[in-house]
Amino acid sequence: MEQDKVITIVGLGVVGGSYAIALSKKGYTVYGVNRSSESLDMALECGAIKKGAHTPEEFFAESDIIIIALYPDQIVEYLKKYGKFIKQGCLVSDVAGIKSRFVDDINAVMPKGSEFIFCHPMAGREKRGFRYADDRVLQGANFLIAKTETTTDEAIARMSRLVKDIGFGEVRVTDAATHDKVIAYTSQLPHAIAVSLINSDDEDSETASFIGDSYRDLTRIANINEDLWSELFLGNKENLISTITSFEEQLSLVKNAIEQDDRQTLKRLFVKSTQRRIGLEKKKQTEK
Amino acid sequence: MEQDKVITIVGLGVVGGSYAIALSKKGYTVYGVNRSSESLDMALECGAIKKGAHTPEEFFAESDIIIIALYPDQIVEYLKKYGKFIKQGCLVSDVAGIKSRFVDDINAVMPKGSEFIFCHPMAGREKRGFRYADDRVLQGANFLIAKTETTTDEAIARMSRLVKDIGFGEVRVTDAATHDKVIAYTSQLPHAIAVSLINSDDEDSETASFIGDSYRDLTRIANINEDLWSELFLGNKENLISTITSFEEQLSLVKNAIEQDDRQTLKRLFVKSTQRRIGLEKKKQTEK
Repeated sequence: MEQDKVITIVGLGVVGGSYAIALSKKGYTVYGVNRSSESLDMALECGAIKKGAHTPEEFFAESDIIIIALYPDQIVEYLKKYGKFIKQGCLVSDVAGIKSRFVDDINAVMPKGSEFIFCHPMAGREKRGFRYADDRVLQGANFLIAKTETTTDEAIARMSRLVKDIGFGEVRVTDAATHDKVIAYTSQLPHAIAVSLINSDDEDSETASFIGDSYRDLTRIANINEDLWSELFLGNKENLISTITSFEEQLSLVKNAIEQDDRQTLKRLFVKSTQRRIGLEKKKQTEK
Repeated sequence: MEQDKVITIVGLGVVGGSYAIALSKKGYTVYGVNRSSESLDMALECGAIKKGAHTPEEFFAESDIIIIALYPDQIVEYLKKYGKFIKQGCLVSDVAGIKSRFVDDINAVMPKGSEFIFCHPMAGREKRGFRYADDRVLQGANFLIAKTETTTDEAIARMSRLVKDIGFGEVRVTDAATHDKVIAYTSQLPHAIAVSLINSDDEDSETASFIGDSYRDLTRIANINEDLWSELFLGNKENLISTITSFEEQLSLVKNAIEQDDRQTLKRLFVKSTQRRIGLEKKKQTEK
């Protein structure tokens, strides 16, 4: 297996930009494609990319790996338009937060002789745009690969090597359906909760003087990209509805226990949540 | 107004211990009272307290300020038992997360010539015990004073001076009813949410490989002291039920929008939450 050397990043937003910075630091030849000149200029100036352009024809012809860091809905159209410029043996990937919805469409438009591998880096920031790109957010982060019928072991090995090289932590291979089901719980539900928590504030109250770290932590991701996240939510509808319902049931248990002055049930729920949270930390430490 | 010099902390847990460390660093004479010898020994060893004891008689007779960092339910009994040792002019305080429930009972048992001021430091850690005490958690934290009919301006001034001196940020004076209403939203609701989020995990799923910072942030406080928090929840029942209900209504808006593929409503909710979260950060920065 030859070493992949030339990488093109399509979309120099916060995620694509963070990849570009990390890859360049590791000595890869990184090309950047972006609609706006502003992000290209910034990325060139800080050395995150070697060359930049508004369209990818020239870069695709040279690249060993292409990472399309666009919104999920845009990937198929992009491949339809520019897929023919991808060179033989190229590995193409994404960074999208949902998978099942796009697997067949994307595989259908991929040119012969190259392969698409569905990837989800579990790293990001609540801010948008290249100016907030930062390779530190990738360090130690979980990396998910959603394997499909067409995914080869070689593609998994190449992508794993690349992302381990730039600092990702655990690389976990799963399938698209499992990915979407678990991500509805671990990523989309927390965003739905954060939004609902801050939106349930009484307009008249001066909340800011009354908050501690817990409220800050739970609302950080209420600062949310409405275009991207409405797409992610609606593109994973059944899973997300199901996970919101499970959460509502658990919250009802807490609420009912309070209403009935049922201290024992409350304590039992708290002991359970504490054990689970400690288990999560232990799992994390074991990995390190 | 003379400078308060001698401070007794009753209860060297994570909050009381953090106070003791911060006060000693600032040159106050700090005495510690604790049931277990282990915490007293640790506090003595690291210089957080000058002297320690299992009961407060001797320390109370000397102290300008007493901070009772026990569970809310224990304060009245403690004052009944040891109030008679408090010296004239002493200011006595608490660190409890709820207020209305205790105001009358506490004021009723306070000895003449000393005053109780109801305080709530918005700082803490999910861990318990002196070994996790850390004065850094107090730095810049919000500090709430719940004023009652008997609270004097002098007491507010003395307590404000003390807590500003050890690094707290904004000191906000409110009344007990407002305190409990807003705290139900900014502190207790986030804990109810964190517990319910982690408890709604599918037992079979290997969640740990699929999480990013958002899930970690939203579940940190699911590691919760079940004795303390069942007391706080049940002691602020009506407010907490009401705030859970408002949150449930907001989450229903999100859920219904997903069910109906209503992208515009989702975006509107996300824009609102984003604006509110940015507003919160701005407020915080203005204070600094």
